[in-house]
Amino acid sequence: MSNDWRQMWKDLGMDLEKHDEFLAPVPEVYGKLFMAQENRPKGMGYFDFVVGDIHGIRVKELVDHKANGGKVVASFCVFVPDEIITAAGGVSIGLCAGAQFPVPTGEQVLPRNLCPLIKASVGFKLDRICPYFQVADFVVGETTCDGKKKAWEILDEFIPTHVMELPQRRAEADKALWIEEIRRFKEKMEKESGVAITAEKLAASIKIANEKRAALQRLYNCRKADPAPISGKDVLLISELAFFDDPKRFTQQVNALCDELETRIVRGEGIAEKGAPRILITGSPMPIPSWKLHAIIEGSGAVVVCEETCTGTRYFETTIREDGATLDEQLAAISERALNINCACYTPNNGRIEDILRLVKEYNADGVVYYNLAFCQPYSIEYRKVEKALQEAGIPVIKIESDFSEEDTGQLQTRIEAFLEMLDK
Amino acid sequence: MSNDWRQMWKDLGMDLEKHDEFLAPVPEVYGKLFMAQENRPKGMGYFDFVVGDIHGIRVKELVDHKANGGKVVASFCVFVPDEIITAAGGVSIGLCAGAQFPVPTGEQVLPRNLCPLIKASVGFKLDRICPYFQVADFVVGETTCDGKKKAWEILDEFIPTHVMELPQRRAEADKALWIEEIRRFKEKMEKESGVAITAEKLAASIKIANEKRAALQRLYNCRKADPAPISGKDVLLISELAFFDDPKRFTQQVNALCDELETRIVRGEGIAEKGAPRILITGSPMPIPSWKLHAIIEGSGAVVVCEETCTGTRYFETTIREDGATLDEQLAAISERALNINCACYTPNNGRIEDILRLVKEYNADGVVYYNLAFCQPYSIEYRKVEKALQEAGIPVIKIESDFSEEDTGQLQTRIEAFLEMLDK
Ligand code: SF4
Ligand code: SF4
Repeated sequence: MSNDWRQMWKDLGMDLEKHDEFLAPVPEVYGKLFMAQENRPKGMGYFDFVVGDIHGIRVKELVDHKANGGKVVASFCVFVPDEIITAAGGVSIGLCAGAQFPVPTGEQVLPRNLCPLIKASVGFKLDRICPYFQVADFVVGETTCDGKKKAWEILDEFIPTHVMELPQRRAEADKALWIEEIRRFKEKMEKESGVAITAEKLAASIKIANEKRAALQRLYNCRKADPAPISGKDVLLISELAFFDDPKRFTQQVNALCDELETRIVRGEGIAEKGAPRILITGSPMPIPSWKLHAIIEGSGAVVVCEETCTGTRYFETTIREDGATLDEQLAAISERALNINCACYTPNNGRIEDILRLVKEYNADGVVYYNLAFCQPYSIEYRKVEKALQEAGIPVIKIESDFSEEDTGQLQTRIEAFLEMLDK
Repeated sequence: MSNDWRQMWKDLGMDLEKHDEFLAPVPEVYGKLFMAQENRPKGMGYFDFVVGDIHGIRVKELVDHKANGGKVVASFCVFVPDEIITAAGGVSIGLCAGAQFPVPTGEQVLPRNLCPLIKASVGFKLDRICPYFQVADFVVGETTCDGKKKAWEILDEFIPTHVMELPQRRAEADKALWIEEIRRFKEKMEKESGVAITAEKLAASIKIANEKRAALQRLYNCRKADPAPISGKDVLLISELAFFDDPKRFTQQVNALCDELETRIVRGEGIAEKGAPRILITGSPMPIPSWKLHAIIEGSGAVVVCEETCTGTRYFETTIREDGATLDEQLAAISERALNINCACYTPNNGRIEDILRLVKEYNADGVVYYNLAFCQPYSIEYRKVEKALQEAGIPVIKIESDFSEEDTGQLQTRIEAFLEMLDK
């Protein structure tokens, strides 16, 4: 079986040796962090299987999809509309990377003083160790932050890169610009796929994406219980897998897990003890496998109950209106979604502060960890306003700046433990 | 006389003690760097006077202007249209700061991992040591880079800040967005000043700004001669002063200097020896008083002949069409200018590479120094493309990442000397 994959990887032009080296430590790390959890929901079995075969069967599905004439489109941001890709018979995969391994390669073409997510994402392509990158027909970048905006110019040397311009404010002119970008992307998809996007097809794909969002919302709702029926680590993992798994299967599996969690909640069963400190994380995204912060927080006896990040609530809380009857109305509904997501790339972005205050209440969080990827300036500068608002509301907050390496683990551990001790529990 | 200024500074709410501390070292530094130059053009006398009285008479002019009911508007980017400010009877001043002194204060409200220009600019306001900031009615920010975009949200806590959204591409939708922003700014100016901007007024102010640009172009043209009739340091200083001096007087003085320089050229007189290595600097802006790099290069026997920066060619090379007969046509011409300036905030920005290659030829440069302010990601990422193009053209290039502190002077000196030795002279 594993041999089949090697041939497939070879056919995808991958660097097999480097790939082996990259994947080698995963089973041990995953075993320790995830499998060793006591009292873990059984429904995690599916997700364990996906991780265990992370570069196997799902990649094979994409290879087959291409063999059948379909397109595979990779992207790096929750603003890029999956719905349009799906409506043109394409498969959308989210390729933000959270691993340290490809960072040095990324640094060969990008400055070192740059967000590790960007360096890792570009490094994966250059290292030829990510089969998803290899199978993709093209990638879709966006202008959310300076780092990404300028990195796409370089990535385009290695794989065709279509860039969507995201507006930076939310005035009428911005809305007009963004809907133009959505239209331009629709035309791009139609041209690449040879499939005309109709209102019927788009309605179906909007529904699929909304159902995935609803399942994730249901999963997050389960975390509001005390004791939390599932660890933050497990939910983070699920959120990360949401970016590349088949959406219908994924939704089904998340809902099956929720059935189990809802039963647990009725029975008062949890992954942590009732009354364990509850942490909300907010800030930069945590793409797979950036599990470090969750591991430290939950290893210290607390439980992560919510992530206000792009690999958290920003991914699913904002759904798309399904009442659009015409293509124009649907495209308008799609474009509204991005403008309603409170990302630090907007100015001003006070809605994010409201979101955080609301989520702290909804999830009954005792403290907030502000997670800032190194050199991510939008989130770093926005910290001041978030900190002020949380302090005024009497909610403890700590800012953690980190990357995907393990170098700072000890130091983070000390800071997080001190923060947890200080919480009023 | 100096006492008059102290009262004025006090009235402007300045921190006099800190301000003394800040200005104390200027005369010595300026004397060494500028006044001590041998064979310096006499026409620099005016600019020496402006620096010698940097927080005096010009500030008094602005105070008087306000007393007469006029507005003073501060900005931080060559994209902000002075012309609209002037047409509403206002005075426009550029407040980008290039000093280390206010950086620690800026870091109290902004992350340390941020462009020193932004930290210094915000720090000046917080320290209350910049009379131009104190006299300004409001400031105009823009969304050129993440750092600035998000910093304006914080600056707005301390002084009213109007933010213009600059597009990130140059497609039709971008042009529509930007002209909307120009219009919105015109309305803002009209509201703040109570003056209606007419086509006549705007034509006059476009002419004033274009004449200033033409004078700077003439000054730069003089640098094309070998030997260069004026040092790079002196031209940098003039460019820096362009942002806050009275535009008509400034233009007159630059033209007077050019008369002298053109005579020098005819006589073969120069500031450096004929055949001295000629350097073009490209990259991040160098606002007053960031003279470090020029001092090192020229202290090592080379001469800086051109700056492809926002305190260089990007400030004046792109002029505004004067054939607009109606307000709409004039606003369109104003909006075109920003879209024609090749700043790294655009994607793609290949025009900048063409500019650099052209300028190297026009100014007969032997090598290029790529100046990157620390943590300035747009220019830092764009380096790869510029480096490639220069290497292909056989033009030596070195990347220097620095800030406004003196800490790295020794290290930069060593690197620059090695680079200059390597040049094929
Ligand atoms: S974490 Fe910040 S710097 Fe990195 S990609 Fe996201 S917004 Fe950009
Ligand atoms: S130098 Fe770079 S980071 Fe600093 S203000 Fe200019 S574009 Fe922004």
